[in-house]
Amino acid sequence: MPRVVVNVMPKPEILDPQGKAVTGALRRLGFDGMSVRQGKRFEIEVDGELTPELLARIEEAAETLLANTVIESFDVVAD
Amino acid sequence: MPRVVVNVMPKPEILDPQGKAVTGALRRLGFDGMSVRQGKRFEIEVDGELTPELLARIEEAAETLLANTVIESFDVVAD
Repeated sequence: MPRVVVNVMPKPEILDPQGKAVTGALRRLGFDGMSVRQGKRFEIEVDGELTPELLARIEEAAETLLANTVIESFDVVAD
Repeated sequence: MPRVVVNVMPKPEILDPQGKAVTGALRRLGFDGMSVRQGKRFEIEVDGELTPELLARIEEAAETLLANTVIESFDVVAD
């Protein structure tokens, strides 16, 4: 089945407390010099063929439901 | 700065209640024929050059902290 990936990340200007927590935890475990931002990854399996219309529909779904576009950016990648 | 992406997804044999909820919400919004699995995406910016040693270190960090390898699989991608 064709698969589409939607990546949702906090916008660069938005504070990312989860990412900050992970960065701090990594440092405490000895992993220095890394700065982490945490987002979400959605793997979407679609029925049938992946047409440009369907891809546009998934973009719409990402914008409507998967990302909060006030604070998050997203990209859609046919996989 | 070099960037490395770590994708963490629930293993195929593991139930994914978040993904199920998203699939259901999409269907109710009129987005049919999509099956969603939800995972995490970590974008890691590293200081200095991205050496093979550093990449191995990030793999180790992913396995130790970012993914729960009992229920999740991960991959590390230099971006």
